[in-house]
Amino acid sequence: MARVLNIECSDRIGLVHLITGILLRENLNIIGNQEFVDRSAKRFFMRTEIDGAIDEARILAASSKALGPDAIVRFAPAEPRRLVVFASREHHCLGDLLIRNAYGELGATIVAVASNHESLRGLVDRFGLPFIAISAEGQSRLEHEKRLLDAVLPFRPDHLALAKYMRILSPEFIARFPQRIVNIHHSFLPAFVGANPYRRAFDRGVKIIGATAHLVTDALDEGPIIVQQVMPVDHSHSPEDLARAGRDIEQIVLAKALRLVFEDRVFVCENRTILFE
Amino acid sequence: MARVLNIECSDRIGLVHLITGILLRENLNIIGNQEFVDRSAKRFFMRTEIDGAIDEARILAASSKALGPDAIVRFAPAEPRRLVVFASREHHCLGDLLIRNAYGELGATIVAVASNHESLRGLVDRFGLPFIAISAEGQSRLEHEKRLLDAVLPFRPDHLALAKYMRILSPEFIARFPQRIVNIHHSFLPAFVGANPYRRAFDRGVKIIGATAHLVTDALDEGPIIVQQVMPVDHSHSPEDLARAGRDIEQIVLAKALRLVFEDRVFVCENRTILFE
Amino acid sequence: MARVLNIECSDRIGLVHLITGILLRENLNIIGNQEFVDRSAKRFFMRTEIDGAIDEARILAASSKALGPDAIVRFAPAEPRRLVVFASREHHCLGDLLIRNAYGELGATIVAVASNHESLRGLVDRFGLPFIAISAEGQSRLEHEKRLLDAVLPFRPDHLALAKYMRILSPEFIARFPQRIVNIHHSFLPAFVGANPYRRAFDRGVKIIGATAHLVTDALDEGPIIVQQVMPVDHSHSPEDLARAGRDIEQIVLAKALRLVFEDRVFVCENRTILFE
Amino acid sequence: MARVLNIECSDRIGLVHLITGILLRENLNIIGNQEFVDRSAKRFFMRTEIDGAIDEARILAASSKALGPDAIVRFAPAEPRRLVVFASREHHCLGDLLIRNAYGELGATIVAVASNHESLRGLVDRFGLPFIAISAEGQSRLEHEKRLLDAVLPFRPDHLALAKYMRILSPEFIARFPQRIVNIHHSFLPAFVGANPYRRAFDRGVKIIGATAHLVTDALDEGPIIVQQVMPVDHSHSPEDLARAGRDIEQIVLAKALRLVFEDRVFVCENRTILFE
Repeated sequence: MARVLNIECSDRIGLVHLITGILLRENLNIIGNQEFVDRSAKRFFMRTEIDGAIDEARILAASSKALGPDAIVRFAPAEPRRLVVFASREHHCLGDLLIRNAYGELGATIVAVASNHESLRGLVDRFGLPFIAISAEGQSRLEHEKRLLDAVLPFRPDHLALAKYMRILSPEFIARFPQRIVNIHHSFLPAFVGANPYRRAFDRGVKIIGATAHLVTDALDEGPIIVQQVMPVDHSHSPEDLARAGRDIEQIVLAKALRLVFEDRVFVCENRTILFE
Repeated sequence: MARVLNIECSDRIGLVHLITGILLRENLNIIGNQEFVDRSAKRFFMRTEIDGAIDEARILAASSKALGPDAIVRFAPAEPRRLVVFASREHHCLGDLLIRNAYGELGATIVAVASNHESLRGLVDRFGLPFIAISAEGQSRLEHEKRLLDAVLPFRPDHLALAKYMRILSPEFIARFPQRIVNIHHSFLPAFVGANPYRRAFDRGVKIIGATAHLVTDALDEGPIIVQQVMPVDHSHSPEDLARAGRDIEQIVLAKALRLVFEDRVFVCENRTILFE
Repeated sequence: MARVLNIECSDRIGLVHLITGILLRENLNIIGNQEFVDRSAKRFFMRTEIDGAIDEARILAASSKALGPDAIVRFAPAEPRRLVVFASREHHCLGDLLIRNAYGELGATIVAVASNHESLRGLVDRFGLPFIAISAEGQSRLEHEKRLLDAVLPFRPDHLALAKYMRILSPEFIARFPQRIVNIHHSFLPAFVGANPYRRAFDRGVKIIGATAHLVTDALDEGPIIVQQVMPVDHSHSPEDLARAGRDIEQIVLAKALRLVFEDRVFVCENRTILFE
Repeated sequence: MARVLNIECSDRIGLVHLITGILLRENLNIIGNQEFVDRSAKRFFMRTEIDGAIDEARILAASSKALGPDAIVRFAPAEPRRLVVFASREHHCLGDLLIRNAYGELGATIVAVASNHESLRGLVDRFGLPFIAISAEGQSRLEHEKRLLDAVLPFRPDHLALAKYMRILSPEFIARFPQRIVNIHHSFLPAFVGANPYRRAFDRGVKIIGATAHLVTDALDEGPIIVQQVMPVDHSHSPEDLARAGRDIEQIVLAKALRLVFEDRVFVCENRTILFE
C-alpha cells in the first residue's frame, strides 16, 4: 500500500539525493515527490509517496541519522484519523462534513460532534453519530473547556475541526492539539479579524467576500492559513445576504482544508503553510 | 444623442413613476433604467439613459422641484472628462492607461501625467503627453502639493487617477476633487491597509492576493471601494513574486474603476459605492 | 406580505411608468424594481417586489389590458414550490439539497426524491423523505418515464431538479414541466456537451473546469444557462481528481440556480436567461 | 549564474536520485527541483534550477548516457529569447507586450512585430521597434506566409507570439517553429473553437467568458493549453460588451503564458501541458 512520508529539516545541498537514496536502498518505489525550500527560513520540506514493503522504523532511523537532530520525519498513519467536529448553532459546515463522512470522502472519520448548544442535535442524530452538548452558560471558559475535554477525549480524537464553533479556545486547550485544530473563519483574513465579519464587510462596502481555513494557534484568527476562497458581492447585498452567500464558501473551504491536512499535504513554516497539492 | 441622468434623493413611494413621468412628458425615450434603494440609509439612487431632444435645464428644474431639496440631479457631461494621472515610479498602471487613452478606450482623455519622480518621463513621451515631474525631496507635503497643483490646474482636470502614486495626499488637496480621485491600492482592502502590502501578505501567508480601486477621502485607504479583484497565490511566491503577480490585477482594477466612474455608474452612499453596471 | 410580480412584453416607450402607475393606483408600495430590455429581441422584462393589500386579480387584469396580448404577467405563488429531486447514484448534490431543505433554506420544499437506482435510499431516509426508485433496466425510455411520472405526479411537483440524474429525458416528459426543470451539467457549457466531461477535460488538458446549471429543453445540454462557476486545475489532476474537485462546484451551482428560480429571478429570452439578482 | 535544466524521459524507478546524483558530482547547487510523472503516458518530467560552475556539455552527455535515447535534456539558453509578435488590427495584447518589453518584464526580447495590416504601425513606432506589414489581400495563404517568413526570419526569432493575429497558419509554417508559437484564443477552449467566439458566447447565453493561451499545432485551436482565465458576465452584456471585457483577460493570459514559456516552465505531454510554476 502506498504511504506518505513527510520530512522537514534545515536546508542544505544534496537533500533530495540523500533522501531518495535511502528509499531506493530500501527497494521502495517513489510514486511522487514534492519538495520546497523556504528561502527566508532556510528550511527544506518534502512529501514523498512510496510503495513497496515499507519498514517504517528502519526508514525513520536512517533518515534521522542522515538528516540530523532538527529534522522532523513522519509517516502518515495507516489508519484514518479520528476527527471531532466542534460547532455552535450554524449547520451548514457541519452538515457538509457529515455527508462527506457518511460517504467516506472526508479523509478522516468523524467520531463525535461537540457543541455549546443543543440546536444541532437533530442533524447529527440523522447520521447516527454521538452528539456532545455542553452549555457554556454560567461557566468560566476553563470550566467549560474542561467539561468539553472530559467528554471529547474518550473519543480519542487526532484532530478537531471548528465548523463555525463561535467560542474562543484557551491556549491550554489548543496546546492539547498542536497544529491539529482547523478553524473556518468567515472572512478573507486578515480582513475582518474577530467578530461579525459580514456586518463589517457590509459597512466597509467590500466588493468581494471570502472565507479562510487556518490552523488554530494561541493568537485569535492569526494561525497559519491553509485555504482561502472568495466570491464577488455588490451593493445590493445586505449583511444577511453576505452571510448567506458566504456560507457556501465556508463549507467548501473547510472541507478542502481538512482534506489537505488528512492527506498530509500541509507543512507549517513560521506562520505560513506549505501545501503540496 | 443618448445622455445619462443620475438622481439620488431620500427614498419614498412613487419615485420611479414620478421620474419616468417627467421624462415621458418631455417626449424622451428611456433606453435604460437602474434603481436601487439603500435600506439602511433610506436613500434612492437612479441612473437613466435617455434619448431624444433633451432640454437639460428644464429637466433639472422639474426634477428638483418634484424631488425636493435633498435630491442630487445631474447630467453626465456631453464632453469626455479631462483626466490627470498621478504616478511615482511604477509604470504598469500608467502604461495600461496610456495605451487605452491612445485608442480612445478610457472613457476620458488624459491631459497630463504628474509624478514625484522623473523615471516615467520616457514612457509618457512615447505617447506625446505632458509630463509634470515635481520632486518631493526637501519639501513639506503642503509645499509639494501646492507646486503640483499649480502645475496641474492649468490642465483643468475633472478627475485624478492615482496610478501607483506612492504619496499620501492632504485633506486640503483631496477637498479640491471631491469623489473625483480614484486610487489603486495594492491589496484586497481592508486587508493590509497602508504600506508594503505584498510584504505583509507574504508574512501572513495568505493564499489569495488582490487589488482595490477606491475613491479617495481623507481617511487613508478607507474611501468607498469601487472595484476589487483577486488571484490565488501559494507558498512558493516570494514577496517580490506577489508584487509582480499583483501588478496585472492592479492595472485591470484601476482601468475598470475609471471606466465605471467615467460612465457615471458610481454613486456613493455612506462609505459604500453603488454600481450600476 | 411582500410579493413578487414578474412582467414581460414587447418593448415600447413608457412601460416602467405605465406599470408603476398601475401599482401606485392600487396604493401598493414598490419595494424594489428591476427592468431589462433585450435589444436584440426587443423584449422588456421587469421584476417588482410590492407590499400592501394586493388584489392579484385586479392587478393582473389591469396589467394585461394595458400591456396587450403578448404580455406575460404573473405573481409568484404565495406558497413555497413543491420540488421533486431526480438523482442517480451520486450523492453530493442531493445531499446538499437535503440539508438545505431540512433547514428551510432551499426556497422550495422537497416533496420526494426519484432515482433510477436504489443506492441513494439510505441518504434520503436519513431526512425522512419519500424515495422513489424505478430501475430503467430492460425498459424503453418511454416506459421508464411513464412509470416515473406515475410515481412522481401524486406529489404534485411544481419543479424538478436533476441532481446528477444521468438519464436523458424525452421531449414529452420535458413538455410536462416547461421551464421548470433545472439540470446540473458537470462542465463549463458549451465545452464538453454530453457524456464524460471530466475525462474529456483531462484529455484536452484544460486549466479550468466548471459546472453549469440550466433549464432543460429538448436539446440536450442546450437549455438556457442560469449559473456557471469554475475552478482552476492543473496537470496533476487525473480525470478522477477533476471529477472530485468538480463536485463541490456542482452542488453550489445547482443550489444557487434553484434559489434564483424559486425567488422568481429568472426570465428566459430566446435561449438566454435574464437574472435579476 | 543560476540556470534551468529541463529533462523528460520514460518513467522508471530512481530517476530523481539519478539526476540529482549527476548534478551533485558536478558540485552544483540545486536551488529548486520540480518533478512530475504523467501516469497515463508513463513519462517523467523534471525542471531543475542549478547554480555553480556549470559545464553544459558534460552534464548533457552524462544525462543522456544515464537516461537513455528517449530522454530530452536541455538547458535554457543563457541569452533572452528573441520574439516576433504577430498581430492583426487589435492593439490591446500587442500594447501590453510592448510595455512589458520596454521595461524588460517579458522574459524575452521583442525583435519585431509582424502584421497583415498597417493599422498597428503607429503603436509599434512609439516603441521604436521594426514593424512588418504584409497584406494578405489577393494572395494565397502560402504566398502570404512565404513573404512573411522572408521578412521575419532575418530577425532570427526563437518564438512567435500570436497576439490576436486573425489568420490561420499553415502546417508548413507552424512546422518551422515547433512548440514555439503561442496563440491567444478569445474563448475558454474548447468552448467556441473557431471564429466569432464572443458573438457565439452571447447567443449561447453563457455566464462566464474566458481566454486561452495555447501552443500552436496543426489542429486549429486544438494545441496544448498553457493558461486559461475567466470572468463572470451577465445578460446585460452585448456581444460587443463581451468582446471588450474579454480583452483584459486576453492580454493577461497571453503575457502569463509567454512568461511560463520563457522561464522554461512548460512541458508538453500528449496534448497537455505540464506547468512547473
